[in-house]
Amino acid sequence: MAKKEKLVFGKLNLMRNDVLPKNKKICIGFVGGGPNSFIGYTHRLAARFDNRFEFVAGVFSRDINKSKEFGMALGLDASRCYSDYQSMAKKEFNRPDGIEALGIMTPSGDHYKIAKPFIENKVNVICDKPLTATLQDAEKLEKLVKKNKIVFALTHNYSAYPMLREAKEIIKTGRIGNILLVNVEYPQGYTVGIKKKDEASILKWRLDKKICGPSMIMAEIGTHSYHLLRYVTGLDAKEVSAEINSLSPELSIDDNAFITLRLKNKSRASIWVSSTATGGENGLKIRVFGTKGAVEWFQDDPNHLKFTPLNKASRIITRASGSVSDFSLESSRLAAGHPEGFFEAFANIYTEFADAITSSKKTNYTFPSIEDGVKGMKFMFAAKESSNKNSKWIKL
Amino acid sequence: MAKKEKLVFGKLNLMRNDVLPKNKKICIGFVGGGPNSFIGYTHRLAARFDNRFEFVAGVFSRDINKSKEFGMALGLDASRCYSDYQSMAKKEFNRPDGIEALGIMTPSGDHYKIAKPFIENKVNVICDKPLTATLQDAEKLEKLVKKNKIVFALTHNYSAYPMLREAKEIIKTGRIGNILLVNVEYPQGYTVGIKKKDEASILKWRLDKKICGPSMIMAEIGTHSYHLLRYVTGLDAKEVSAEINSLSPELSIDDNAFITLRLKNKSRASIWVSSTATGGENGLKIRVFGTKGAVEWFQDDPNHLKFTPLNKASRIITRASGSVSDFSLESSRLAAGHPEGFFEAFANIYTEFADAITSSKKTNYTFPSIEDGVKGMKFMFAAKESSNKNSKWIKL
Amino acid sequence: MAKKEKLVFGKLNLMRNDVLPKNKKICIGFVGGGPNSFIGYTHRLAARFDNRFEFVAGVFSRDINKSKEFGMALGLDASRCYSDYQSMAKKEFNRPDGIEALGIMTPSGDHYKIAKPFIENKVNVICDKPLTATLQDAEKLEKLVKKNKIVFALTHNYSAYPMLREAKEIIKTGRIGNILLVNVEYPQGYTVGIKKKDEASILKWRLDKKICGPSMIMAEIGTHSYHLLRYVTGLDAKEVSAEINSLSPELSIDDNAFITLRLKNKSRASIWVSSTATGGENGLKIRVFGTKGAVEWFQDDPNHLKFTPLNKASRIITRASGSVSDFSLESSRLAAGHPEGFFEAFANIYTEFADAITSSKKTNYTFPSIEDGVKGMKFMFAAKESSNKNSKWIKL
Amino acid sequence: MAKKEKLVFGKLNLMRNDVLPKNKKICIGFVGGGPNSFIGYTHRLAARFDNRFEFVAGVFSRDINKSKEFGMALGLDASRCYSDYQSMAKKEFNRPDGIEALGIMTPSGDHYKIAKPFIENKVNVICDKPLTATLQDAEKLEKLVKKNKIVFALTHNYSAYPMLREAKEIIKTGRIGNILLVNVEYPQGYTVGIKKKDEASILKWRLDKKICGPSMIMAEIGTHSYHLLRYVTGLDAKEVSAEINSLSPELSIDDNAFITLRLKNKSRASIWVSSTATGGENGLKIRVFGTKGAVEWFQDDPNHLKFTPLNKASRIITRASGSVSDFSLESSRLAAGHPEGFFEAFANIYTEFADAITSSKKTNYTFPSIEDGVKGMKFMFAAKESSNKNSKWIKL
Repeated sequence: MAKKEKLVFGKLNLMRNDVLPKNKKICIGFVGGGPNSFIGYTHRLAARFDNRFEFVAGVFSRDINKSKEFGMALGLDASRCYSDYQSMAKKEFNRPDGIEALGIMTPSGDHYKIAKPFIENKVNVICDKPLTATLQDAEKLEKLVKKNKIVFALTHNYSAYPMLREAKEIIKTGRIGNILLVNVEYPQGYTVGIKKKDEASILKWRLDKKICGPSMIMAEIGTHSYHLLRYVTGLDAKEVSAEINSLSPELSIDDNAFITLRLKNKSRASIWVSSTATGGENGLKIRVFGTKGAVEWFQDDPNHLKFTPLNKASRIITRASGSVSDFSLESSRLAAGHPEGFFEAFANIYTEFADAITSSKKTNYTFPSIEDGVKGMKFMFAAKESSNKNSKWIKL
Repeated sequence: MAKKEKLVFGKLNLMRNDVLPKNKKICIGFVGGGPNSFIGYTHRLAARFDNRFEFVAGVFSRDINKSKEFGMALGLDASRCYSDYQSMAKKEFNRPDGIEALGIMTPSGDHYKIAKPFIENKVNVICDKPLTATLQDAEKLEKLVKKNKIVFALTHNYSAYPMLREAKEIIKTGRIGNILLVNVEYPQGYTVGIKKKDEASILKWRLDKKICGPSMIMAEIGTHSYHLLRYVTGLDAKEVSAEINSLSPELSIDDNAFITLRLKNKSRASIWVSSTATGGENGLKIRVFGTKGAVEWFQDDPNHLKFTPLNKASRIITRASGSVSDFSLESSRLAAGHPEGFFEAFANIYTEFADAITSSKKTNYTFPSIEDGVKGMKFMFAAKESSNKNSKWIKL
Repeated sequence: MAKKEKLVFGKLNLMRNDVLPKNKKICIGFVGGGPNSFIGYTHRLAARFDNRFEFVAGVFSRDINKSKEFGMALGLDASRCYSDYQSMAKKEFNRPDGIEALGIMTPSGDHYKIAKPFIENKVNVICDKPLTATLQDAEKLEKLVKKNKIVFALTHNYSAYPMLREAKEIIKTGRIGNILLVNVEYPQGYTVGIKKKDEASILKWRLDKKICGPSMIMAEIGTHSYHLLRYVTGLDAKEVSAEINSLSPELSIDDNAFITLRLKNKSRASIWVSSTATGGENGLKIRVFGTKGAVEWFQDDPNHLKFTPLNKASRIITRASGSVSDFSLESSRLAAGHPEGFFEAFANIYTEFADAITSSKKTNYTFPSIEDGVKGMKFMFAAKESSNKNSKWIKL
Repeated sequence: MAKKEKLVFGKLNLMRNDVLPKNKKICIGFVGGGPNSFIGYTHRLAARFDNRFEFVAGVFSRDINKSKEFGMALGLDASRCYSDYQSMAKKEFNRPDGIEALGIMTPSGDHYKIAKPFIENKVNVICDKPLTATLQDAEKLEKLVKKNKIVFALTHNYSAYPMLREAKEIIKTGRIGNILLVNVEYPQGYTVGIKKKDEASILKWRLDKKICGPSMIMAEIGTHSYHLLRYVTGLDAKEVSAEINSLSPELSIDDNAFITLRLKNKSRASIWVSSTATGGENGLKIRVFGTKGAVEWFQDDPNHLKFTPLNKASRIITRASGSVSDFSLESSRLAAGHPEGFFEAFANIYTEFADAITSSKKTNYTFPSIEDGVKGMKFMFAAKESSNKNSKWIKL
């Protein structure tokens, strides 16, 4: 057996590549992600990115013929294309080569019930966010995962960008001192032009609170933003005050949220998420200010991190350059200057999920966990409650 | 008499230059701005920038010898260097060539009393911000200005950057449609490293609420930010909710404010001002999002404006290029590509103040007025009250 | 059979996804790319990116045990791991399920001899650049490809970035008018710090002109740059004048080239490539200036294209936004604002190579061809000759 | 007498302000710069910027009435407005309060003859670039300046940007090691759209080689670029090879130049200047690469300097921040984050010219000198000769 090699190229010394531990791939199936699903395509690509998964089964439609047609077009055997998760759970469980891992990318209201039979069969689960549509489901799912000791990953993919992780490492090692102030913003602009008559066809399930939760913008990107804040800083919010509105002219769903957070001690944070920011194109940005320095990362320039030591010139740290830590380097695949992007970050979650399955020790994962999912749900519900109560501070 | 010429250079066709209307300069004096005063230097430079003022008198110290020494070093006649504003007011009033205009750049608590005798003598006043330290003084000053019909300008200098004005024009002419959302941020980092023992020597009068108002960060840059929001959008806030804190480790003055604003109808805004944003260097930014487009301007790149029409590519509009309106072009002095900066914007206020004095019609000024000053004070006090009441919404 | 679906997400309407034409993958093998090879890893990832290839065979070492060990670690069957290309060609040819496509990523001196037996067996070839190490080999390879009518692709991967292609489309449709001026630059900095004693261990085969050609920097990135210029503008150089040097303190290989090019009519171009540009990190940039506008693309910000119509504001066009052409959109996989990078561009070449193999019509490929490879070789040799003759103009 | 004070603001500790050495201004006159002259306006503004000059006399037109009308509109006494430089020289010389300094901003062909009578009367001269239109005039002017020991400054204003000077200081103190490679580029786009019929009205004297020299683009910005290269690096060119063309569709003047330079030892440089770079807006950039690091400065972002130590993260050094040297700080007027621009740089030349006049010691000026002017002329003529000889290398 070839041991997992490091790629060496100049200063680049990478663990992320396509060499298999024990020469073995993990068999995976997916529920969700039919023909026009961007997120389905993304999960499948992320799974094959580092050569770690063999994609063997799936539910792509409630119509068995459509599910088979699409599954075969992805290269599956027709016999492993299913019309519902229940039959998939049962049949895969009865196969000697049944799936070891399941990816779920349906609307969040279905996550718990779909995951349940698989988890009870010890299938490891990687699930899209937000975790569920209700806090009750989230907590039930958490219990189930812990009871069955499976590996569970939540695809808060933004936290897996190498330079975002470099920010985390810089903070963790004390290079910006104690945190004073955090800003996260995620401006998007996609709801501004939507007409009332097109709302249902464009926004689809996002309009249905039963399957999407109490607040569209909070479910879509509010939970991402809060996870990012927690992931990078290591801090939880104690209280939140929020003003959440529907600003797009013809719509009534939540499309903008201003949230102020009290973290521990004197430190404060703000989160702004919007789909009303005309012209916004996934402009996720995080800035963390401490007593000894500051860091800033922006998704539109994901391969660089700005690090400003107190009273010194800002450093522009490039991914995989000589200035990065091993922690972020291990999430990189390319030499400095060759740009990586969204898919590489998403694939990092999948590959670390694979590592956690393959590895005997199930601790210290860097990917988002079931606990992270539950905390995200609590944040979303607290912010919505605050907004409903005229920005009253709500404890988390 | 040479009429005021336009400079023509390529597409550049400028009104801002050093040609005098009626071949005549306006005599000006200053109160404040001694040897180590940055703001004093800035006002004097702004006054001479476009050749419109003759600087003839001033109070630079309470010690008459020091005041004379410094005034002469600036090129003044010793007889017009004074030790207090009262004697300056009296003596200048008795001269046939006495000052027609007064610049005030003392701490704001003194603005009203200094301005009073000059205004009563029909001297026009240009005053640093914030207007005063109390709402009462602000309102008394407003009455005085209106009663005496003098020209009054407040140096909210950021509003005079040409490309900020281009943003105003784009909004005014409907190119971004109805405003949905506004963000203003002004991160600075200068209080982070200050030790308790150095507080008094570094922050000086900023620690004294009597001469600086109820909230250091709100007085310093909160009022600037709110003026900018109003200037660019043409909208006033109806209510504010604020969280204002002291985050710098060893200090107790306000150094960070998160403010949410309800504007008219459905539109919302946020203002964030800070001196705790480690590494922040006057990073003033404004973004306005509407139903048909968005604009974004950033002081660190002042010669460009980003304009994004709905569902179209962003335009990077350069100052004085073929794409700008006459309104912003008239605030420009240099061809596109040659950078202008802070002093040019400051000088615009002075030159428009001169125009208003020289012109017979006293309307439609583009510079910040006494009313703007009063609104800024109301905003500052409302935000502070909200913060004191646990972020309760306060009406303006 | 599911027809190849378009993914629809907002305005995004993509052809690039993982749906297989006729439910069928293409069997591919690789020669080159052992354990520590970055380029080997890149080719394999590019092949699996869009789910179009089944990787089944390869030569990874001259030592059969090492080749098997590594091949199995990539998931191959041991029986299809070979120690030399000759036996691979023979054995794969004799299998009913033998490879239909071959990827070559050895040093360029070996390309011709490796490709030959496969091409003669009608195996389609995708080959790393530069095409060969001599002009003779390049021309022999061209004849062989044309005689056997196989599909041949050269991985000048930079030309497959979507926004680079948008630049090509803007130029082709006349939006910048007639081309006047072109700049290409590719500054890297990796040779500056190399000590004489480490030269062999770091630069390896790059020191050997027999397997790498007459000029290190020209072979590595000069050919890339010239291909990019030709791809984007549609113009060939008529004459070149070059100053090629070895500037790194302790080295003697070519590490910097300044090249001036006369294109057709009055138009001129410059190409600058370097590994002596300290701190340079794959800073590939192309700027094209025409009678009606200009375009600029920079690898460090690959998801945007700057397009400046004559006398108008620059447009920042975002990949996959509402402003792009179908041509570039078809090379995209992600909605505007989510960054794509180097691997996606590389994968575009592989996927279009797959399309060309699958499709009955073998024309109008967008990927770099055998003719492009030959032109790159002629450019490299002419530039080197010019430099040897004190920058004399050399005809191409 | 007040000694010249330093302004202290936070870390800012500035020498540039409006305090007069010995309470005294220098009387200055100008030849050139009539009503529509941008460069005339710029010189006058630069002279009054730091309060150091009293503008008292000038020639603004050959028509005495026009000259008086314009001069009075600038605030001059009618008796000191002249119609020709000869009478100005004579009359000012006979006044007890005659000018001590002369600014010249006519086309370069007139510089020598205008300067001559003033220099012979010991009037100090500040002159626009290029120095003259012929090498003969340049050398005669140099002799005259040296013989009469007057202070002479040439307004290569770009060299006076504080962060450009910081680049010089970083290089001088060895922080980038030995220089290997230099790039200077200055793309402008103003000739692209000019029609043949408008050529004379737009380009004016630029078409006349007698008053503007052998090559429009070289005189306009080629000399600026070469001065910048020499100023920042401290190196002279030994040989140049150039391709200078007229690329704008309807014009025949030189509008684009690619120049390669051999500096000392192994080091090389390139200069590209153009008015055919459609959309170019004074995009002056300089990059210097050495054995230990690199620096990059761009006029479009003049308040920052990029400094990249070998194998380390790039530093973005901000003007007047805690990271700059005294050398650049002394050219600054504003705290870090408040942008300075073109006029401040131009004013630096004037203020240092004033310092040189006022000071008893006449050495170590930082502003461009008569020798710099002569070297620029030699460069321009050598480059033009090389281009005429099909890019032959020409010694300087």
